[in-house]
Amino acid sequence: MPDTQPIQAQGSKAARLRALLEGTSVVRAVGAHDGLSAKLVQRAGFEAVWASSFEISASHGLPDASLVTMTQYLDAAIAMDAVTDIPVIADCDTGFGGPMNAAYAMQRYERAGISALCIEDKLFPKINSFADAAQDLLPAEDFALKIKNAKEMQSDPDTVLIARTEALIAGRPVAEALERAHVYVAAGADAVLVHSKSRRPEEVLEFASRWESPVPLVAVPTTYNTVTEGELYDAGYRLVIYANQGLRAAVKGMQEVLQDLGGADRAAEIEERIAPMAEVFALQGMPSTFRTKP
Amino acid sequence: MPDTQPIQAQGSKAARLRALLEGTSVVRAVGAHDGLSAKLVQRAGFEAVWASSFEISASHGLPDASLVTMTQYLDAAIAMDAVTDIPVIADCDTGFGGPMNAAYAMQRYERAGISALCIEDKLFPKINSFADAAQDLLPAEDFALKIKNAKEMQSDPDTVLIARTEALIAGRPVAEALERAHVYVAAGADAVLVHSKSRRPEEVLEFASRWESPVPLVAVPTTYNTVTEGELYDAGYRLVIYANQGLRAAVKGMQEVLQDLGGADRAAEIEERIAPMAEVFALQGMPSTFRTKP
Amino acid sequence: MPDTQPIQAQGSKAARLRALLEGTSVVRAVGAHDGLSAKLVQRAGFEAVWASSFEISASHGLPDASLVTMTQYLDAAIAMDAVTDIPVIADCDTGFGGPMNAAYAMQRYERAGISALCIEDKLFPKINSFADAAQDLLPAEDFALKIKNAKEMQSDPDTVLIARTEALIAGRPVAEALERAHVYVAAGADAVLVHSKSRRPEEVLEFASRWESPVPLVAVPTTYNTVTEGELYDAGYRLVIYANQGLRAAVKGMQEVLQDLGGADRAAEIEERIAPMAEVFALQGMPSTFRTKP
Amino acid sequence: MPDTQPIQAQGSKAARLRALLEGTSVVRAVGAHDGLSAKLVQRAGFEAVWASSFEISASHGLPDASLVTMTQYLDAAIAMDAVTDIPVIADCDTGFGGPMNAAYAMQRYERAGISALCIEDKLFPKINSFADAAQDLLPAEDFALKIKNAKEMQSDPDTVLIARTEALIAGRPVAEALERAHVYVAAGADAVLVHSKSRRPEEVLEFASRWESPVPLVAVPTTYNTVTEGELYDAGYRLVIYANQGLRAAVKGMQEVLQDLGGADRAAEIEERIAPMAEVFALQGMPSTFRTKP
Repeated sequence: MPDTQPIQAQGSKAARLRALLEGTSVVRAVGAHDGLSAKLVQRAGFEAVWASSFEISASHGLPDASLVTMTQYLDAAIAMDAVTDIPVIADCDTGFGGPMNAAYAMQRYERAGISALCIEDKLFPKINSFADAAQDLLPAEDFALKIKNAKEMQSDPDTVLIARTEALIAGRPVAEALERAHVYVAAGADAVLVHSKSRRPEEVLEFASRWESPVPLVAVPTTYNTVTEGELYDAGYRLVIYANQGLRAAVKGMQEVLQDLGGADRAAEIEERIAPMAEVFALQGMPSTFRTKP
Repeated sequence: MPDTQPIQAQGSKAARLRALLEGTSVVRAVGAHDGLSAKLVQRAGFEAVWASSFEISASHGLPDASLVTMTQYLDAAIAMDAVTDIPVIADCDTGFGGPMNAAYAMQRYERAGISALCIEDKLFPKINSFADAAQDLLPAEDFALKIKNAKEMQSDPDTVLIARTEALIAGRPVAEALERAHVYVAAGADAVLVHSKSRRPEEVLEFASRWESPVPLVAVPTTYNTVTEGELYDAGYRLVIYANQGLRAAVKGMQEVLQDLGGADRAAEIEERIAPMAEVFALQGMPSTFRTKP
Repeated sequence: MPDTQPIQAQGSKAARLRALLEGTSVVRAVGAHDGLSAKLVQRAGFEAVWASSFEISASHGLPDASLVTMTQYLDAAIAMDAVTDIPVIADCDTGFGGPMNAAYAMQRYERAGISALCIEDKLFPKINSFADAAQDLLPAEDFALKIKNAKEMQSDPDTVLIARTEALIAGRPVAEALERAHVYVAAGADAVLVHSKSRRPEEVLEFASRWESPVPLVAVPTTYNTVTEGELYDAGYRLVIYANQGLRAAVKGMQEVLQDLGGADRAAEIEERIAPMAEVFALQGMPSTFRTKP
Repeated sequence: MPDTQPIQAQGSKAARLRALLEGTSVVRAVGAHDGLSAKLVQRAGFEAVWASSFEISASHGLPDASLVTMTQYLDAAIAMDAVTDIPVIADCDTGFGGPMNAAYAMQRYERAGISALCIEDKLFPKINSFADAAQDLLPAEDFALKIKNAKEMQSDPDTVLIARTEALIAGRPVAEALERAHVYVAAGADAVLVHSKSRRPEEVLEFASRWESPVPLVAVPTTYNTVTEGELYDAGYRLVIYANQGLRAAVKGMQEVLQDLGGADRAAEIEERIAPMAEVFALQGMPSTFRTKP
């Protein structure tokens, strides 16, 4: 049977995530798109899984543009949670619509055992933040209403609601990002993710230096990938999310092997470059009596 | 919007699969577990996608042991079909239970636009054929009943039902595999997959040499991977399925990158070894106006 | 096995719906929320099933306010289609977001075998048209873009796209409803549904009298329920949808029986007022050998 | 937003179910097939919802014969749980396959917040117990293994696992039912459901009179519906499940109204016999500001 551990004996995952965020070192999360990639994130020693809407929509072969539904995102998050012992942080885009949608998302994700939800202040339907497209923001007070509604629906005090501002993504100044983030904290956000598509970390570092709240900050260093976790932690970030590198590794691995297999006339040519069957069996949690011999 | 083509103008996918199987060269299919991996299979030039139950269960982080449900397998096959222009061949394990389940699977997969179903003569719940476990076979006449029931429910004459015998997997002689396969053809199977976990191709080649039916043969050279497509075609195989190499490439890619990211303190260290964001956007079918600049 | 008929031999359901709409009598559809209610609609002799978003959201116990996702609405429509031989017309609300969502809905519903989609010109997230709430309309040209995108994605020429104007629901005059509807036809709509929450049929009759297009009209006489099908047909309506009466009959049936069962101390008291087990077995399509004796 | 209450403040639903079963009066549960019917069960004052596989498969318009998957049954149970404040007891048929499937079901249902699971000692795929069909039983020790595996996977001590014996359904004597049930208790069952299709309650009463365990008994008086809850409680039954009456009430309500609508030419004729729209809005939990006027 699946090799996950009973969870409640160790305290809920949400409680552990809260404790990690209040700890004295940076918390590291990595994006996943299904149970398998989440399991690999855990095995590599990371402390949380980011149920990335970019990765999940990509795994469907679809644009990250609000085509994939809350049902599908939640199912993916549940699959990740089911086979890992670390908290799952769900990327919930805009909260899937208006304030009632955000409240409903809180209710459903929390009941499913997901430790944290992250919602962002863009318009629904959204477009991926790194896409070369105009990014329209919701007025801050409208997004604050989403946060309030979601927090009112929360039933486990340990569940974490992360408010993500896309102000920098939309080309607004750091001052607006800060102003928005403070409004979101006043509305009840448990953490603030300030997203950036700059090639340089300066704007996220500046944001942190001007941050006037004890609420923890979250960074997603996709484009500004030369910054170190130490620099981010020293600046004030408590959670660093590597949001899409896992999927991008999978794509590269599959592309190269499939291309070579396409040009070959047998699988032996690529056997050394793929995981052995026994390795996948181990990841699947096959009972030991069913495992292949070494 | 998604960049797939209207399908019906080109003839149904099932009709094209039929035509391919009657062609004069080997048909090559590769396993996938989601829309993205299916799209990569198409891009690498293969002619069909194998919606592998091993890959799909592994993508959930679960053993290939009938835990993942028909709902989930069908959803995965639909996701593959939605974003590709090549036929999807669905690995339907045992048909998900008894004869009524097999008939129901035919009805649901066909209505969803899936071109082919493959069912196998093991007991439900099944264990993956390469697992180090006892493999129990259904009596041939019971499996023939599944085939008959499924064929009776078929409504599109082009849908392909592949009967897969696990006789060799279960340690039975080639003679029994042949006897079973002929019974399955008599029951209505449109193709026969003879599975083997031998390290050598001899038994599948012997099977083909003794095959007495015009119904096409299917091979899955996972363990006997030194055989070439040419050798299989000359022996009589018309469809060769590389059933799990894509997932195994993804696993290796993710494992290596996540391990290195785990030991690093920033993402820049692994940036060269993963697909660029723009590459993933292209795979997702982002409208051109939304794509990132080169 | 399920007692549905092979479908393609009779022509596709979508083709039959087209033929019905071009016929010389009114086409009657009734709302359903699951396979069972759809089957009852067919058994009562109606010609089409309306996969009502009001009914489906209510069946989840949720408000009709864009909380239920496209995944869930589509699954419900598929369940209806699977067990009936009549066309399913899917109530797709606003198209589930923007123009890309509408195009994606067309792709997914059509591929799943659903004969018709209906999208409406309200903002996402929507509120049920009969709710005592402000109803905001999308600008006509924005809704026309949804129609165009959806029609471009269509692959089966027989699929029917119904454009629904909520102009009268939003308190706008008949003239605006007409203007909008003509724009929608120019954008490619195959039929126009003009919704009304008036207690009297005058406004829908006036709409029809001023209609200047061969594109067929659709009426949903929920509140103005004294109008006859004959009057609607004579005015120009070709399709009449009884959108929610089935669910409301189920609610009343369940409420009364459960209340009485609550006050009783055994089930015998309500046995005469519920369908016999054998009746439900027959609806489920149990193979005859499994049916209970009379 | 949905009108459910935060749950954890009141103790978990599973803990409340445990407390009810240890109380001094009979616990009454009623079958449901979706969120709406579950909500009606709660409104009528019952203490638990039975997520009936008969009702759920019927709601799909499908036979109760293991065609509907665990995914679909679990989704239905989740929908019921989401909109009610009373515990949901999930009818899990055979545990959906073998011992590993039963363990997996425990893991998934429990994580989803479902209070109790019931598994039965028939073979997979099963046929409804009231169907006129041969009913094959699993050997007692094989079913005990399912119970053991499921209990080992349990993580919340309050989750209730009900073992259901179909011995009487299969025509075996009360002695065998008792012997089986005692084996199941030894394997870890938290309660025992003894099913019967007799028209008279004698065999279930005899079973209770010979029951030698403190583990609570459960009755489903479908066919022997003249027995009172008082008689069952006095005999030793602690939980009485009215497993299918709700759906049967819905069927009768829909059948009669649709038939009459079919023969009429307008909806006014049946308006008095269906629930008003405002009643359905109230059931859907529409925010008060959105409700229709009285």
